[in-house]
Amino acid sequence: MITVAEAQARCLALAAEVSLPSEQVPLADAAGRVLSAPARATRAQPPFSASAMDGYAVAATSVAPGDSFEVVAEAAAGHAWGGALKPGQAARIFTGAPVPEGAHQVVIQEDVSRDGDRITLLPSLGNGPNIRPLGADFGMDHSLTAPRRLGPAELALLAAMNVPEATVRMRPKVALLATGDELVMPGGNPGPDQIIASNVFALKAMIEAAGGEATIMPIAPDREDALQAIMEDMRFADLAVTIGGASVGDHDLVAKVGARLGLEQSFYKIAMRPGKPLIAGQFGEGRPYLGLPGNPVSAIVCGYLFLVPMIRQMLGESDVLPAPLTARLAAPVGANGPRAHYMRARMHEGTNGREVTAFDRQDSSLLTVLSEANCLLIRPAGDAAQPAGAAVTVLPT
Amino acid sequence: MITVAEAQARCLALAAEVSLPSEQVPLADAAGRVLSAPARATRAQPPFSASAMDGYAVAATSVAPGDSFEVVAEAAAGHAWGGALKPGQAARIFTGAPVPEGAHQVVIQEDVSRDGDRITLLPSLGNGPNIRPLGADFGMDHSLTAPRRLGPAELALLAAMNVPEATVRMRPKVALLATGDELVMPGGNPGPDQIIASNVFALKAMIEAAGGEATIMPIAPDREDALQAIMEDMRFADLAVTIGGASVGDHDLVAKVGARLGLEQSFYKIAMRPGKPLIAGQFGEGRPYLGLPGNPVSAIVCGYLFLVPMIRQMLGESDVLPAPLTARLAAPVGANGPRAHYMRARMHEGTNGREVTAFDRQDSSLLTVLSEANCLLIRPAGDAAQPAGAAVTVLPT
Repeated sequence: MITVAEAQARCLALAAEVSLPSEQVPLADAAGRVLSAPARATRAQPPFSASAMDGYAVAATSVAPGDSFEVVAEAAAGHAWGGALKPGQAARIFTGAPVPEGAHQVVIQEDVSRDGDRITLLPSLGNGPNIRPLGADFGMDHSLTAPRRLGPAELALLAAMNVPEATVRMRPKVALLATGDELVMPGGNPGPDQIIASNVFALKAMIEAAGGEATIMPIAPDREDALQAIMEDMRFADLAVTIGGASVGDHDLVAKVGARLGLEQSFYKIAMRPGKPLIAGQFGEGRPYLGLPGNPVSAIVCGYLFLVPMIRQMLGESDVLPAPLTARLAAPVGANGPRAHYMRARMHEGTNGREVTAFDRQDSSLLTVLSEANCLLIRPAGDAAQPAGAAVTVLPT
Repeated sequence: MITVAEAQARCLALAAEVSLPSEQVPLADAAGRVLSAPARATRAQPPFSASAMDGYAVAATSVAPGDSFEVVAEAAAGHAWGGALKPGQAARIFTGAPVPEGAHQVVIQEDVSRDGDRITLLPSLGNGPNIRPLGADFGMDHSLTAPRRLGPAELALLAAMNVPEATVRMRPKVALLATGDELVMPGGNPGPDQIIASNVFALKAMIEAAGGEATIMPIAPDREDALQAIMEDMRFADLAVTIGGASVGDHDLVAKVGARLGLEQSFYKIAMRPGKPLIAGQFGEGRPYLGLPGNPVSAIVCGYLFLVPMIRQMLGESDVLPAPLTARLAAPVGANGPRAHYMRARMHEGTNGREVTAFDRQDSSLLTVLSEANCLLIRPAGDAAQPAGAAVTVLPT
């Protein structure tokens, strides 16, 4: 048995061998994608010294209440005034308008009294220049570095840089195959000894949230020929994932059929609960393969720990492992056994920071419990019983 | 001026008047959608008492090392054995298989020695029944309550309940209109006094992440007739959002043209930085309207505080406002002015929980700063200077 950290390192090494091409995507469709090449600004922002307020641009290096100027021009956003102010002159100006040559500051309109073409500064006069200098946000040479996940702010920044399309890593194609004669798809008519395939829907959602493109394959029955045919159909994928059929039971055929198809198995058992039976390897042509356990909770927990990081690795991101957080136990937990335990738990914001409570029922078949959980509480192998208030590590889910 | 909390309450009241229909969506496409009606299980899970391990189901209420059984049958997942075990009999059984009638526990295969059709229990014998009782996860009457955002675990749970399609609230259609003669779309050819429209890309990403469907309208120039024509084209939307043109400048036409189109304006100025100029109201036929400030950072911050909660409200969710977290200041901050300040800041996990550092540059035009931020640090109106280590409130972005 190997540790979770060792298994994660091996999974990421497999994923790192995949080199996905990039594609150009319009900004309106690029949310959540991973920038794969630095983006360079084709202009500065603002591209000119711009008024930050509605008011008057005045041709004076310093101003005082009572000072008076002649209004000779007007400048609005998108409507520059091409001229230059001379000392004693002012231009009516609106937010976002280029500040005319010769003007040193903008006096906000609330600090001015106007009479015809003449303004006089009022005693309320503030002291700000109210000007956003050319390039205050970024200069012409500005570059948005890659790799980087594109969120709302990055998209707005790319737009302001006049980069209409982002160069992003293509989404890895992930094939998801649930195996087992006991499985029927939702809406099907299960026999008395059958259950409904459920893991694939959770895993598809996790893959897509991570930036992959998931395809659910037809359920594979426990027959070598049928399983082999469906596994061959997974060759289109950048990452092949099977669910179930990965333990040592006589009916677990995945490793056997996989070997026939060129699957090189990298490891088998991890010192963790839930999810001990797990296979990782290469599925022909250097593409990674992951064999998840069949129990729903085990499959989903292994999805968070191994599958999502592999997808993020394939997308070229750094720091792809789930980020552990510290929390305090709201209730005591018993001693842990010889394997790391990823307990289903619920975290909330307490008066002194995060508090976490593990659910009493931890069987790896309980989807009701998983759906109430919002994190995994990590118990190290051999950890002693811990009292309420102890600092523990959690992974948000 | 009204407070942020009051403005949020008014925005949510406007959104609450919208009643969106529901639709049926296959589970594979339902991630992130909001369940709008309770889903009821059409079967229990497991639907039979199932073996949790590979081993032998034995017909004995208590067992001890040395006990011996005759193997008379086999049961695998999806392949029940229809018979009943008599005392002294056992069935070979695999994980997920129905436990035969007459069996009281499953002995794992590692705890058994087998000789032909006879098994003998070994000294390593564990004490678990290794059986998942019928309905241990959920019973036939189980219901997944609504409203509820469907994440991976909920999708797996619905599948296991044999609910093939989720009843979800339809996505609210949101029209996004950037206004101003100074704006050009990315990839365009801006004049020397123009800038690139950027906010709409950030807002579209935020709307879609919240579960809405965003349409970017053509940029509206600062001419009443053109603005009116485009605003009329926004009537298809469940929520109309304009950006810019909402302050008191002579060139800010949105309120004027909006009034002509039946816009009822609910409020105007909020005691906050950034984002003071904000309009909310109804845009004909009781559909909400939101007018955001034009500065990129102001628009995006107001998006987090007002727009996203409105969308979540329209989707029927509860607790739709962004959840504040407590953090400690990693560096001191100066006194705040008379308006609540939502400072761009970066939060990280310190040794004693969350720490947060506000950026030095807080001008509402700085997208580079916003793209480095991962939270907003809330400074209450009139807040005194705070030392490093002080407890503050942040909103993750």
